[in-house]
Amino acid sequence: MLKGPFVLKMSGHVFDNEELLLNHARIIRDLWVEGYRMVVVTGGGSLARHYIGVARRAGVNESLLDTIGIAVSRLNALLLASILSDISYLVIPGNLEDTFKAWSTGRLVIIGGFQPGQSTATVALLTAEYLGFKYVVDCANIDAVYTSDPRIDPSARRIERISAGELMDMLRSRTIAGTYDLLDPWALSIARRGGITIYVISCSSPNNLVNFVRGGSGVGTIITP
Amino acid sequence: MLKGPFVLKMSGHVFDNEELLLNHARIIRDLWVEGYRMVVVTGGGSLARHYIGVARRAGVNESLLDTIGIAVSRLNALLLASILSDISYLVIPGNLEDTFKAWSTGRLVIIGGFQPGQSTATVALLTAEYLGFKYVVDCANIDAVYTSDPRIDPSARRIERISAGELMDMLRSRTIAGTYDLLDPWALSIARRGGITIYVISCSSPNNLVNFVRGGSGVGTIITP
Amino acid sequence: MLKGPFVLKMSGHVFDNEELLLNHARIIRDLWVEGYRMVVVTGGGSLARHYIGVARRAGVNESLLDTIGIAVSRLNALLLASILSDISYLVIPGNLEDTFKAWSTGRLVIIGGFQPGQSTATVALLTAEYLGFKYVVDCANIDAVYTSDPRIDPSARRIERISAGELMDMLRSRTIAGTYDLLDPWALSIARRGGITIYVISCSSPNNLVNFVRGGSGVGTIITP
Amino acid sequence: MLKGPFVLKMSGHVFDNEELLLNHARIIRDLWVEGYRMVVVTGGGSLARHYIGVARRAGVNESLLDTIGIAVSRLNALLLASILSDISYLVIPGNLEDTFKAWSTGRLVIIGGFQPGQSTATVALLTAEYLGFKYVVDCANIDAVYTSDPRIDPSARRIERISAGELMDMLRSRTIAGTYDLLDPWALSIARRGGITIYVISCSSPNNLVNFVRGGSGVGTIITP
Amino acid sequence: MLKGPFVLKMSGHVFDNEELLLNHARIIRDLWVEGYRMVVVTGGGSLARHYIGVARRAGVNESLLDTIGIAVSRLNALLLASILSDISYLVIPGNLEDTFKAWSTGRLVIIGGFQPGQSTATVALLTAEYLGFKYVVDCANIDAVYTSDPRIDPSARRIERISAGELMDMLRSRTIAGTYDLLDPWALSIARRGGITIYVISCSSPNNLVNFVRGGSGVGTIITP
Amino acid sequence: MLKGPFVLKMSGHVFDNEELLLNHARIIRDLWVEGYRMVVVTGGGSLARHYIGVARRAGVNESLLDTIGIAVSRLNALLLASILSDISYLVIPGNLEDTFKAWSTGRLVIIGGFQPGQSTATVALLTAEYLGFKYVVDCANIDAVYTSDPRIDPSARRIERISAGELMDMLRSRTIAGTYDLLDPWALSIARRGGITIYVISCSSPNNLVNFVRGGSGVGTIITP
Repeated sequence: MLKGPFVLKMSGHVFDNEELLLNHARIIRDLWVEGYRMVVVTGGGSLARHYIGVARRAGVNESLLDTIGIAVSRLNALLLASILSDISYLVIPGNLEDTFKAWSTGRLVIIGGFQPGQSTATVALLTAEYLGFKYVVDCANIDAVYTSDPRIDPSARRIERISAGELMDMLRSRTIAGTYDLLDPWALSIARRGGITIYVISCSSPNNLVNFVRGGSGVGTIITP
Repeated sequence: MLKGPFVLKMSGHVFDNEELLLNHARIIRDLWVEGYRMVVVTGGGSLARHYIGVARRAGVNESLLDTIGIAVSRLNALLLASILSDISYLVIPGNLEDTFKAWSTGRLVIIGGFQPGQSTATVALLTAEYLGFKYVVDCANIDAVYTSDPRIDPSARRIERISAGELMDMLRSRTIAGTYDLLDPWALSIARRGGITIYVISCSSPNNLVNFVRGGSGVGTIITP
Repeated sequence: MLKGPFVLKMSGHVFDNEELLLNHARIIRDLWVEGYRMVVVTGGGSLARHYIGVARRAGVNESLLDTIGIAVSRLNALLLASILSDISYLVIPGNLEDTFKAWSTGRLVIIGGFQPGQSTATVALLTAEYLGFKYVVDCANIDAVYTSDPRIDPSARRIERISAGELMDMLRSRTIAGTYDLLDPWALSIARRGGITIYVISCSSPNNLVNFVRGGSGVGTIITP
Repeated sequence: MLKGPFVLKMSGHVFDNEELLLNHARIIRDLWVEGYRMVVVTGGGSLARHYIGVARRAGVNESLLDTIGIAVSRLNALLLASILSDISYLVIPGNLEDTFKAWSTGRLVIIGGFQPGQSTATVALLTAEYLGFKYVVDCANIDAVYTSDPRIDPSARRIERISAGELMDMLRSRTIAGTYDLLDPWALSIARRGGITIYVISCSSPNNLVNFVRGGSGVGTIITP
Repeated sequence: MLKGPFVLKMSGHVFDNEELLLNHARIIRDLWVEGYRMVVVTGGGSLARHYIGVARRAGVNESLLDTIGIAVSRLNALLLASILSDISYLVIPGNLEDTFKAWSTGRLVIIGGFQPGQSTATVALLTAEYLGFKYVVDCANIDAVYTSDPRIDPSARRIERISAGELMDMLRSRTIAGTYDLLDPWALSIARRGGITIYVISCSSPNNLVNFVRGGSGVGTIITP
Repeated sequence: MLKGPFVLKMSGHVFDNEELLLNHARIIRDLWVEGYRMVVVTGGGSLARHYIGVARRAGVNESLLDTIGIAVSRLNALLLASILSDISYLVIPGNLEDTFKAWSTGRLVIIGGFQPGQSTATVALLTAEYLGFKYVVDCANIDAVYTSDPRIDPSARRIERISAGELMDMLRSRTIAGTYDLLDPWALSIARRGGITIYVISCSSPNNLVNFVRGGSGVGTIITP
C-alpha cells in the first residue's frame, strides 16, 4: 500500500482505447474516494504521433512538434478531468507553479506535458520532486523494464529491481531497446537526486493499478533512487 | 478581391484530411505574402466529435463537452500555426482580448474556440466585429447554403444571396436541415448588428479559397448584414 | 428550500438603488452563514446603459459596447464582493476557468459578464452547468414571466410554470414583449441541455430572495429544463 | 510643442460630461494622427466617488475602496479606448509591465489606476518614468496650481512655475487647500527623481490640450523636476 | 499574544546573515504550527543595494532601479518559501490580488515588493489592510524608533509608543534620521486609515520575534493607528 | 559575420564582475544598433550558487533549488534589460511562449532560466529552435571546449570543431572534466535535432563577442549540428 501522495504517470496508449480509459477513470475515482492522493500525468498516445506526423511532413521544427505533442497530452488530461469532474481540478496546469496552485486546493490534479524537450516521464518526476512526493507510479504500455526488447529478443530478461543510476548506465550503453519511450535519462536523474522510487506497472488492465496501490502487488519493476 | 482584413473560418473537416490541410496552409501563406490580412478560426472536425463522444458516454456535462471540443479546435489551430510558423503568431489566443494582442503584432493569428456554449462560427463573427473587420469567409464542408439538405432532399435549392435576418428566420422555422453546423442564429445576429458580410465557400478544394480571395469568384452564398 | 449549490443572478437594477443593494448584501451573507452555497452573477443596470449610450453615440461597435457593459457588471460584482469581503472571493473571475478556481477555495464567488455577445443570464446558466449546479435563481426586476408585457398589456397573464423549450418557442414567436432582458434563447437552451431549473423571483424586495431560498415560497415562475 | 512622448493624465471629471469627453477623444485622435505619442491615464470622476460612497457606508475598508475607485478609472479608460478603437490598445493594462507590453505595439495606450494606495497622478508619473518619458500633461479640473484654494480664498495666487520639491514643501505645510486632488507628495517625488516636467492645464475646454501640445500655450503651471 | 492574523515584515538584512535567516525560518515554522497565521513580507537587503548600485552606475532610471530591488526582495521571498516548503505557498505573489488568492488556500504566504515607488513597509501595510488584518510586526534592523539616529546622536531617545499621525509629523520635520528605511509616510498613512497597529521589534535575534508573538514582550515601539 | 538572428548565452560569471557586465551591455547595444538581432540568455553566476547553498543547507529539495537558481538568472536578465532599456523588452519572459510574444515586438529580448531540471544552455538551444534561429553563441567562462579540464590536466587539448553527437559521446564517457557546466547532453541533443550551430567563445573580454559577431574571429570551438 502506497504511503503518502504519488504521481501517476498514465501512458498515452490508455487514451487510444475507450474501455481502458473509462475503466482507469473509475479506478482513479475509487482510489481517491478511499483517501489515496495523487497527481496524474497523461501522455499523448497515438493521436500525438499522428498530429506530429502531419506537422513533420510539413517541415515543422522539433520544438514545435513537441508543442503539438504537449497540446495532445493536455487534451487527454482535460478529457480525464472532465470524466472525473466531481473530484478533479478542471483547469489543466501547464507548469510546476500552476500545478502547485491546483494541488493546494485539495482536488485531484491532472496534467499533461509542460515544455518542448521534456518527456511526460520527466514531467512526472519533476512534479513529484517539486511537491515533495516520494513515489511515481509509471503505468506503462509494457509490464516492466527488460534487458532488451521482449517483442524482438526472446532472451530479454525482465528486471525486478534496479537503481535509477544503473538504469541510466544501461540506457546510455543503448542495450535496452524499446525502453526509450518508458523512461529517459533525464527523468531518471531526477528520480535519483530527488530520492523518488518509480514503480513500473502495466496499464493493459486497470486492475494492475488498483491492486498495486492498495496492496503493492503487481509491480513489474521497482526503480530505486 | 477582398478589400480589407477578414476572418477565415476553416471547417474542422479540413483537419481530417492531411492533403487538404497542407494545401490550405500553402494557400494561406501565399495569400499572406501577397498582402491579404486575416485571422483564421479553426474548427474541431471529426476528432472533436470522437473525444466528445467518449466523454458523453462517461456522463460528462455539456459545458465540459464544449470545453473538450474547444481544446481540439485549439489543437488544430496550433497545428496550422506550426506549419505556418514563418508568418504566424505561435501562441493560440483563447479569448478576444488575447486575439487583439496577437493581432497587434502584425502576424497571422490563428484561433480555435473560446468558451462553452459558443460555436466557432460565433467566434469568427465576434472576432471580426471586435477587430473592426467587415468580412468573414466561411470555408465550409458544403459549397453553399441550401433551402433544405441537398444530400437528402433533391428539391433543395441553393441560395445565392440572403440577408442574415432572413436566414435567421429560416433557421428558426427549422426548414433548412443540415445548416445548423454551418451558421447558428447567434453568429448571424452578430453579423447583422456588426454589418459583417459572410461569404460561404466550399473547402473541398483549396482553390476555392484562393480564387475567391483574389478574384471574388466561387462564392456559394453571400449573406449580407 | 434549495438543496445543493445554486447560481444567483442578480439584476443590475439592484445596483441602481443603494438600500436595495445593501439589503441584498445582508441577505446573501445571512444565507451563506446558514450554509447555503452559491455563485452570484451581477448585471450592469442603468450605469451600463448610460456608458453604452455614450459609446454608441461615438460610433463604437457592438462588440466593444458589450465589453463596456461587461466592465460595468464586473464593477458591480467588485462592489458587492467588497461589501461581503468577510466571506467573498475578492478577485472577480472573468471566465469559467477562473470561476472554477475561485469556487474551489470554498468562498462566495461573485462574477459579472464574461464575453461580448453573451447576456449575464447566459453567464449564469453556463456557470451553473460548468460547476455542476442544478439551480439558477433569477432575481429580476419583474416578479415573473408573463405572456406579454404587463406594463403595457392589461391582459398579460403570469406564467407559473413552463419548460425552457416552450419558453424558447414563445420568445421566438416574439409574443412575449419585455422578457428579452430577462432570459434569452441561448440561456434557455443551456438550461435545457444542462437539466437546470430556473426560478424567477422579484428583486424589488430582498425578502423574496431569503424566503425563497429558505422555504421555496415567493417564486414567480419556475422554468423546468 | 512637446518634443517626445508624454503621459496625459486626464481628470475623471471629463467623464462626467459627455460632450467634454467626446471632444477630448477627438482631440487625442487628431494629435495622434499628427504624430504625437502619448499614454493616457484616466481618473474615476464622480462615478468613483459615488461607488466608493456606497461601499464606505457598508463599512468596506480603505484598501478595497481604492480597488473600487481603480475599477471605475479602468472602466473610463475602456470607454475612451473603445471610442478611439482605430488607434488604441483595446485591453486596459493594470500595471507597469502590461503598460510596457501595450506600448511596445506602437498603439495609443490608455490606463486607469493600478493599485490601492496610489493616486492616478502617481500612476501617471510612474508610467512616464518607467517608459523613459520626460513630460506629464496634467489635464485637471482646475486651470493651475494656486497658493490657496481660489474658490474660497480671494487672495489666492496662481503659480506659474514651481519646482516639484518646493511644491512638496508647500503641500506639507498644508497651506495649499484644494490641490490635494491634483498632485500628491508621492507623485511629486517621482517627478523630481525622474527628471519629469509636469504641465498643469485645464480640461474645461479641449482646446487647452490641443493648443498646449501643438504650441505650448495655455499652461497653467509648470512644475519643474 | 497576537490575536488574529498579522503581517510580518522581515527586514532584508536578515537575508544577509545565513544563521539569522535559518533561525527565523525555524521560528516562523514553529509559530505557524502553533496556530499563528501570518503573511511574511521580505526586504531586499544588501544584495538589493548592490544590484541597484550597479544599475545606477549604468544610468538606469529610478523606476527600473525599484524594479530590480523588487526582484531581489522576491528572490528572498522565494528562498524563505523554499526553506518552509512544508507549510508555504511556493509561488511568490506579485500584487494584492495574487496575495489574496494565495492566502485563500490556507498556506503561509511570503511576498516581496510589488511595484516601483513602494517600500516593502507600504506593501506590508497595504496587504494587512486588504486582507483585513489588524497588526503588522515590523521586524527591523534596529530595535525601536528613536527621536534621532542612536548610532550618531547620543541623546537619541527611544520611543515606546506613538501614533502613526505623530510619527508622520516627525518624519516630515526630518528630525528622525535613519528611520527613513524603517517606515515611510505612505506606509504610516495606511496604518492610520486602516486602523492597523505596528509593532517594531528587532530582528537581530529571532527570539525577539517568537517572544513577542507568543507573549507580547520585547516590543521596541508600538505605533498606534 | 553571423547571418540571421542568434541566441547569445551569457555565462553567469559576467554578472560577478561589474566592469565585465557593463562592457558586455555596451557591446550588445552596439551590435543591436548595427542591425544584429539576438535573444540573450543569462546565467546565475556565483550569486545563484550562494543562494542555492543556503537553501541546500536548510534541506530544500533539488527542484526548488533549481527554482531559486532560475530566479537569480532572471534577476540578472532584468539587470541587463534595465541597463539596455532603450532597446530591450523590459519584462523578462519565463517560458517559450512569452519569449515568442516578446520577440514579436521587435525589441531585444533577455531571458534567464525557465524550469527546474533545465540548464540555461538548454534554454538557449530550445529558444533558438522554437524561434527558428540557426545559431547559438555560447559566451562562456572558458575559451573553448577541451578534451579534459585544462586547469588540471596539462595535456588537455583544445577542440576546434566537433559535432554535437560526438561531444555527447565524449560527455557520456565522462572524460571531459569541467565541461559539464558548459553544455549538457540535453542541450546538445537539441542542437543536433534542430540543426543549430553552437559557437563557444570566451566572455573574459567583451571584445571576443563583438569580434566574433562582426567578423567571425575568436571562436574557441564550433559545435556543428
